[in-house]
Amino acid sequence: MTDADTLCVNTLRMLSVDQVERAKSGHPGMPLGAAPMAYVLWDRFLKHDPADPAWPDRDRFILSAGHGSALLYALLHLYGYDLPLEELKRFRQWGSRTPGHPEYGHVPGVEATTGPLGQGFAMGVGMAIAEAHLAALYNRPGHRVVDHFTYAIVSDGDLMEGASHEAASLAGTLGLGKLVYLYDANRISIEGPTDLAFTEDVGRRFEAYGWQVLRVEDGNDLPAIESAIGAARNERRRPSLVIVQSHIGFGSPKQDSAASHGEPLGAEAARATKRALGWPEDASFHVPGEVSAHCRESVRTGARSREAWRVAMEAYRAAFPAPSAKLETRLAGKLPDGWEAALPTFRPDQGAQATRSASGAVLNALSAAIPALMGGSADLAPSTKTLLKGSPDFSSSHPEGRNLRFGVRELAMGAAVNGMALHGGILPYGATFLVFCDFARPALRLAALMGTRAVFVFTHDSIGVGEDGPTHQPVEHLLSLRAIPGLRVLRPADANETAQAWRMALREPGPTVLALTRQNLPVFDTDAVPVFSGFQRGGYVLCEAEGGAPQVVLVGTGSEVHTALAARGILGRQGICARVVSVPCVEIFLAQSEAYRREVLPPSAPCLVVEAGVTRGWREVVGDRGCVIGVDRFGASAPGEEVFRHLGITAEAIAERAASLLAAKK
Amino acid sequence: MTDADTLCVNTLRMLSVDQVERAKSGHPGMPLGAAPMAYVLWDRFLKHDPADPAWPDRDRFILSAGHGSALLYALLHLYGYDLPLEELKRFRQWGSRTPGHPEYGHVPGVEATTGPLGQGFAMGVGMAIAEAHLAALYNRPGHRVVDHFTYAIVSDGDLMEGASHEAASLAGTLGLGKLVYLYDANRISIEGPTDLAFTEDVGRRFEAYGWQVLRVEDGNDLPAIESAIGAARNERRRPSLVIVQSHIGFGSPKQDSAASHGEPLGAEAARATKRALGWPEDASFHVPGEVSAHCRESVRTGARSREAWRVAMEAYRAAFPAPSAKLETRLAGKLPDGWEAALPTFRPDQGAQATRSASGAVLNALSAAIPALMGGSADLAPSTKTLLKGSPDFSSSHPEGRNLRFGVRELAMGAAVNGMALHGGILPYGATFLVFCDFARPALRLAALMGTRAVFVFTHDSIGVGEDGPTHQPVEHLLSLRAIPGLRVLRPADANETAQAWRMALREPGPTVLALTRQNLPVFDTDAVPVFSGFQRGGYVLCEAEGGAPQVVLVGTGSEVHTALAARGILGRQGICARVVSVPCVEIFLAQSEAYRREVLPPSAPCLVVEAGVTRGWREVVGDRGCVIGVDRFGASAPGEEVFRHLGITAEAIAERAASLLAAKK
Repeated sequence: MTDADTLCVNTLRMLSVDQVERAKSGHPGMPLGAAPMAYVLWDRFLKHDPADPAWPDRDRFILSAGHGSALLYALLHLYGYDLPLEELKRFRQWGSRTPGHPEYGHVPGVEATTGPLGQGFAMGVGMAIAEAHLAALYNRPGHRVVDHFTYAIVSDGDLMEGASHEAASLAGTLGLGKLVYLYDANRISIEGPTDLAFTEDVGRRFEAYGWQVLRVEDGNDLPAIESAIGAARNERRRPSLVIVQSHIGFGSPKQDSAASHGEPLGAEAARATKRALGWPEDASFHVPGEVSAHCRESVRTGARSREAWRVAMEAYRAAFPAPSAKLETRLAGKLPDGWEAALPTFRPDQGAQATRSASGAVLNALSAAIPALMGGSADLAPSTKTLLKGSPDFSSSHPEGRNLRFGVRELAMGAAVNGMALHGGILPYGATFLVFCDFARPALRLAALMGTRAVFVFTHDSIGVGEDGPTHQPVEHLLSLRAIPGLRVLRPADANETAQAWRMALREPGPTVLALTRQNLPVFDTDAVPVFSGFQRGGYVLCEAEGGAPQVVLVGTGSEVHTALAARGILGRQGICARVVSVPCVEIFLAQSEAYRREVLPPSAPCLVVEAGVTRGWREVVGDRGCVIGVDRFGASAPGEEVFRHLGITAEAIAERAASLLAAKK
Repeated sequence: MTDADTLCVNTLRMLSVDQVERAKSGHPGMPLGAAPMAYVLWDRFLKHDPADPAWPDRDRFILSAGHGSALLYALLHLYGYDLPLEELKRFRQWGSRTPGHPEYGHVPGVEATTGPLGQGFAMGVGMAIAEAHLAALYNRPGHRVVDHFTYAIVSDGDLMEGASHEAASLAGTLGLGKLVYLYDANRISIEGPTDLAFTEDVGRRFEAYGWQVLRVEDGNDLPAIESAIGAARNERRRPSLVIVQSHIGFGSPKQDSAASHGEPLGAEAARATKRALGWPEDASFHVPGEVSAHCRESVRTGARSREAWRVAMEAYRAAFPAPSAKLETRLAGKLPDGWEAALPTFRPDQGAQATRSASGAVLNALSAAIPALMGGSADLAPSTKTLLKGSPDFSSSHPEGRNLRFGVRELAMGAAVNGMALHGGILPYGATFLVFCDFARPALRLAALMGTRAVFVFTHDSIGVGEDGPTHQPVEHLLSLRAIPGLRVLRPADANETAQAWRMALREPGPTVLALTRQNLPVFDTDAVPVFSGFQRGGYVLCEAEGGAPQVVLVGTGSEVHTALAARGILGRQGICARVVSVPCVEIFLAQSEAYRREVLPPSAPCLVVEAGVTRGWREVVGDRGCVIGVDRFGASAPGEEVFRHLGITAEAIAERAASLLAAKK
């Protein structure tokens, strides 16, 4: 530990304090306590180059304790990222690159959006999976072109959240040796000392998960931190947790108190802190020249690492042209040319099949064409049909395996899927029953916020689940997922729409939810039904009214499209011309031109929507004159068809309502 | 272990197998493996009386592994609950009392709805909190009228879920010694051996949480199970986990295989199982006479326990009339007479205040009048304002404390709150930021499904959160909560509406969400504004159009009511008469008579809704001619007022849109 080290650590501390003071908002306590561990990690170990924040083989660093954002911004600034002091001075202000919590895609060098605790922890696990997998697939003897660590700083709060348990247990099972987490153990959370709610023996708990646990008794002891991180890096069979006993608000009058956690120290205490740490007390956003010089040196080291990697890649490319081309396509986030040719088309004479089964067929048909496809289920693979045939399970002995066994851990699955997508080189998917997406919801929200290209396969998408009953039957889930901005929710009506749904999920940016049936559905004839063009528009005329202009339009999604088709038959026999429209994605449909929407849903004909979920939110489609048939209650345990019948989702009920709509119009 | 014991265990097994076979659906594996531990618990320890399933001092038993419902129904049948064999024969059929997963309120003797894994575990923790608290408050020397255990059978899947970590860590901290969980460690989950995803050392993990961990190596060893449960009961300072190594599908050809988990054995394998266990292979739903006789004896023991308690209560009532009256009121789920008089009325001259602050004031004003009020926050008490002043924190040294410190564990909090409500005697609440209700969502769904009287206090309810940014700013949450059937979502617009919201939450059955502001809001004058009557109807005219019939109606919720009021002023200056309507609960408003709704929202005037959340779902209120101003994107980090301004939630924007609506009408 040199004077320069101390100066650097205190610069990180004071830049953090100054950001929070200037903004009159933020969390000074965590940066004051955690600056030493962050500094040692960034200065001595982290392989990165601010000139190319997206350099594929950089180490990943996640500040899972995202409320300590000021510390991360201070690090990014000092270590040469495109984050000038002016941005630090605009901490938490409109349009700044220094938002209240780190935002991926918004701030250069931020690897993941954090703030909701526990998820940064779990996203890192996904990143480490991605690294291990790509390394296993593409490295060759003498050519280790994928070889980096995933680091995080995690807090008491992270470790209280269930996500940390799920992800840590999974990481232990998978033996992710290149995962190195620093636990900022400051024993203080918002309500006060962690003893109030959190007396567990964290080290013992992580040992139970199969982690290596290392301890640093004094969070200001830089050599001890350095030695522990070194030991963590040397353990390649197990993930490592370095427990660093730190002091929240270190050096401030509010040290070791919850008062330093989530609000500015205040001018007086900020000055006192500077005094205590030997800082010029009137300086603000002060970066001593020695600190700049020291950090510039570290930046040069990073640049050399990247250059070495570039050279290594050239050698690799020359020696192994085929795998290197594949790897580079993957790392660029591109899909291999011609992959869409692998998408199957289903024929009606293949017989009815559940959209979950069609999804399984599509996934397996695509798996050879798109090696980046990788994922798994939260212990429901046989039901969600998400197993890639012929591939082993991803594990420490088979890191090349593409099937992930997430266990009954939906939230960690969602976050790990995000982490894999953020890492790059992987097109990840995660699967469970639609009703259990509730467990993963915080990760779905972050997927949408970050725009990760991730696919969430949610099967058993309605009361059609049947016997398992209301705990397993989603009713509010389609609406509640559609409510998340930027989350693409697709509910295909047959096997061919399912293929199109996968196509859209993989082609377009951002996350996608596929809502798929448990029960079998007939397959549309793609010669007769414009599935390919129609699906892209979110809604389309699936089946025109027989014998003239439609008197009524029946709109369905997923399995209820078939109920609507049957209702059309009944109405036809009553001399009523009904059109059937499939709306696999209501948001995309509503975003079409008004002309198109009026073409599909002519204002002259009343519109009736049927979807086996809550009716709220469909009024935008049907208007005042239309009506919605849905399920505004919880389901019930009985064979699926009976539940549909008892809850009024039948062709007869639709036909009756359609006829009465028409009568009312006259 | 006697012949009768073996016969009873096998009866439980075969009744389970027969239910699943008859239904052609269900989970036979768990009951075959776990029947011995369930039998020992029910036969030797469980204090209950089928003649009064709601007897307050009964032991609680939760089948957290709810997919093993057939086993629970077999237990309930054998031990004399109102669940005849005919109901077992109607397993998983419409209208039966034997749904696919145990449903509270639907099946006598079922203490909690289970199926979504991990939550039964966490609800039990809430029950144990309730027991310890009531015992501390009301027991007297020589009068232990509250004195029971909370038991559960938990599975591998339960322990993988994050909820189990959160709840177990909390239970360890709280030293809940009367919590006894049996872990059915059968090493098989749906995808196969648990080694695929779950290699942690569960015992070591629970020791790290501060639990006593006991082990039974052979799940068929009844004396070993009995001895372990005995040891668990004897440890009163720590919760206990009894790890029972069992065999899924025991005795069947599919033993120790995932194939026995989630589908019927099939006729052939069912016969083979019966043969293997010495059962008449052609018998179905067979209960040997010795078994009936044995269980009847156990029922008599239960009846004697209840009678002893009744006698004890009489003595207690005579010796301690005041506390016994209080306890009985609480156990009956009644509120003390006159509690509503304690509800504060706020005056405008008290100054603007955030609805979270008003909520804190209401809660504290009610706490003396309603001793059953008890709850806490997920490490956000200073922000959610949910601390009861003058009460200690609930802990093993202060079990009489009414403030719970849940830690950063929203899901366990939600489930524990449900568990406290299910236990009875407690009116529980749990608090966090609205955006983090996502973590608790699976528990909110179960609250609605079970109809627990629980209050969820969700503050920081919009982009008004400001600097913390989009990770902390809810936008989709109001809609996604309203989507849950049976969940009452209230968004009061000022301190007085907040008091009414609490009043409704405590008076009415079922769970309530209170969405409350971070930022200050003016207080309505209750002499001028019909808050009391209006709130009950979900929506009401808050401020009539000045100078005649309204030309336009501005509808707001929560903080946006004030934005609408300001817009009304602007419009007034332009000569446009605008009425302002507050809609604290859109579902209650939509359930009012059409006449009332037309009175509030006259069809003659276009309607404009403003709410700082996604706009979807408001079309039901505004109709085709109206419009909705909301936030159909994620928020951003900046001071709250700036975020409102940049995202168009301002009085000026509302006035402009209202004027253009009017112009379009003309």
